[in-house]
Amino acid sequence: MEVGEVDESTVVEEALEEATVVQEAMEESTVVQEALLELSREARELYLGGLPGPGGVHQARVQEVSSPPSALQFLRRHVSPNLPLVVRGGCAHWPAVASWSPAALRAALPATQVTVAVTPTGLADAAVGEQFVMPEERRMTMAAFLDQLEEPVEGEVYYVQRQNSNLTEELGELLGDVTELPWASEAFDRPPDATNFWMGDERAVTSMHKDPYENIYCVVRGHKDILLQPPTDLPWIPYRELTPAVYKQEGGVWSTSPTGDPPLPWVAVDPLRPDLATFPLYSNSTQLRCRLGPGDLLYLPSLWFHHLTQSQGCIAVNFWYDMEFDVKYNYFNLLNNIKKTISNRL
Amino acid sequence: MEVGEVDESTVVEEALEEATVVQEAMEESTVVQEALLELSREARELYLGGLPGPGGVHQARVQEVSSPPSALQFLRRHVSPNLPLVVRGGCAHWPAVASWSPAALRAALPATQVTVAVTPTGLADAAVGEQFVMPEERRMTMAAFLDQLEEPVEGEVYYVQRQNSNLTEELGELLGDVTELPWASEAFDRPPDATNFWMGDERAVTSMHKDPYENIYCVVRGHKDILLQPPTDLPWIPYRELTPAVYKQEGGVWSTSPTGDPPLPWVAVDPLRPDLATFPLYSNSTQLRCRLGPGDLLYLPSLWFHHLTQSQGCIAVNFWYDMEFDVKYNYFNLLNNIKKTISNRL
Repeated sequence: MEVGEVDESTVVEEALEEATVVQEAMEESTVVQEALLELSREARELYLGGLPGPGGVHQARVQEVSSPPSALQFLRRHVSPNLPLVVRGGCAHWPAVASWSPAALRAALPATQVTVAVTPTGLADAAVGEQFVMPEERRMTMAAFLDQLEEPVEGEVYYVQRQNSNLTEELGELLGDVTELPWASEAFDRPPDATNFWMGDERAVTSMHKDPYENIYCVVRGHKDILLQPPTDLPWIPYRELTPAVYKQEGGVWSTSPTGDPPLPWVAVDPLRPDLATFPLYSNSTQLRCRLGPGDLLYLPSLWFHHLTQSQGCIAVNFWYDMEFDVKYNYFNLLNNIKKTISNRL
Repeated sequence: MEVGEVDESTVVEEALEEATVVQEAMEESTVVQEALLELSREARELYLGGLPGPGGVHQARVQEVSSPPSALQFLRRHVSPNLPLVVRGGCAHWPAVASWSPAALRAALPATQVTVAVTPTGLADAAVGEQFVMPEERRMTMAAFLDQLEEPVEGEVYYVQRQNSNLTEELGELLGDVTELPWASEAFDRPPDATNFWMGDERAVTSMHKDPYENIYCVVRGHKDILLQPPTDLPWIPYRELTPAVYKQEGGVWSTSPTGDPPLPWVAVDPLRPDLATFPLYSNSTQLRCRLGPGDLLYLPSLWFHHLTQSQGCIAVNFWYDMEFDVKYNYFNLLNNIKKTISNRL
């Protein structure tokens, strides 16, 4: 063959080779989506349970016990397999459950300053349009905060939700009414990293998110409705990039101003009213719901998605324990990296 | 436009759309391989340790302690994160460690029948050419087996390796010399599913595989060299389909005959002498090695790959406990399903 001459068989061979590579890639893409579907199906089959509910989203139950587990049982059946647990009456022995009421708090802490999250709608740390809006943080006395809870005003929602261990940092006077759960601290082999106090308006909603902490969430007064989704649902939970901003109320008028921070990915779906036309793959996921009353607690495992609503004046205390960055975390990151391959279909 | 006329802009649009789909699929394929690489990198960074050794395969150490952990510690630090542990002297208190010797076994069990795996090379349950060859199983007295160990013959390797709880089933007389490890049974919350006795020729090799069991592997006499690889290495460990067959020796001549069972996928690489030219992706994996001496034990977590060799006449006892089919198993199956997308490159 002369130099410069085109060898037709080589051209055909190359084209065939390219077609094979392309076909393999297409097949791989389907294999990945099927593998992710199988992950969620198998999770239901092996340990979540759950049946399709309205719109196809699966509904399952959180396991419940009526007395605290031993540290060994808790570790074996819940922490190791990363499975939530409701302990009915798990903190019912706390003096807090018997004694904390608005009147008692007013009497005990009249002049104590607390940090309160204030928003026009109850949505704090949540998507509002294209923004991720954080609440206006106001320092006020406990008495002033309780006034707001007792006579709620349209367009002003108050929620004590500061997650800087505010029970130990701001409300030390109350610490004696709450005790660590020994089975939890023994299982985790460490004291809590933070102890947070939560009290607020029934309009306040905690939008769906996950935390890199093991969480023991205790209701002292009123009730909390908690919706949970397992980490293995990550591929079906749509995120979008939002511009961080903060609420500000001036002269009775609310505005938001961007913080200047880079865009933040946040869960785009409302799990209580999922828009399945926009997010059809969300129906592959599984929701677990529970209501905690006074004295009840939930073990909310690390990396589980959660969404919370509450009754008016509900009071809760939660303990955050550092999580282990073990093979489960390692696999979760794999899932997050693989999710990118199907994100254009979410 | 007339019926039958070709709309050029539609053709171009469709071609562009197809090109986009193809490009996306190609990118996804790269994303998956990168995600799997990141899984192994992060595993080393977070909990395996390890540095590249000869040929690039990473080498790390099994964690060791010199006294048994509590059940809670064992569960928290090893079972929950699925991490191996060597307990030096963990079964040194067994009467078996003080008393089991060829002479003592001969005296105690002269006429007891044992099932012995016999092969020409020491490779039992292993790839030989295109076959997966199982050993010839012979029933013989303990005395006859010990004769073979004491005067080994070229081309005949004897190994007591029957994994049907042979210590309880065939060698009940020895049971009193061995005790369950209470910290293990307490952590797993169950008695062992099987207790196996191992004794054999130094030429016997247990080829790399994994078991769906939690394993407590105890050396009574001699030593075992164990090579481990974590479940997250699955994508880099090549398998191939082999035809099941069984060894048979007749008139001093060895042959193999297919069992007629369907082909079996088996690990294709020899971890002691990996052929990296044939299996280049194997160098992304991590090997952990340990040598167990008399009285030492290894917690060999479920789904970890393992390969074993031993000293002449080495005796070991292992306990298999049922594993939990939890989120770690669920994620491992995801990995297995996703591995298919890169298997054409292995």
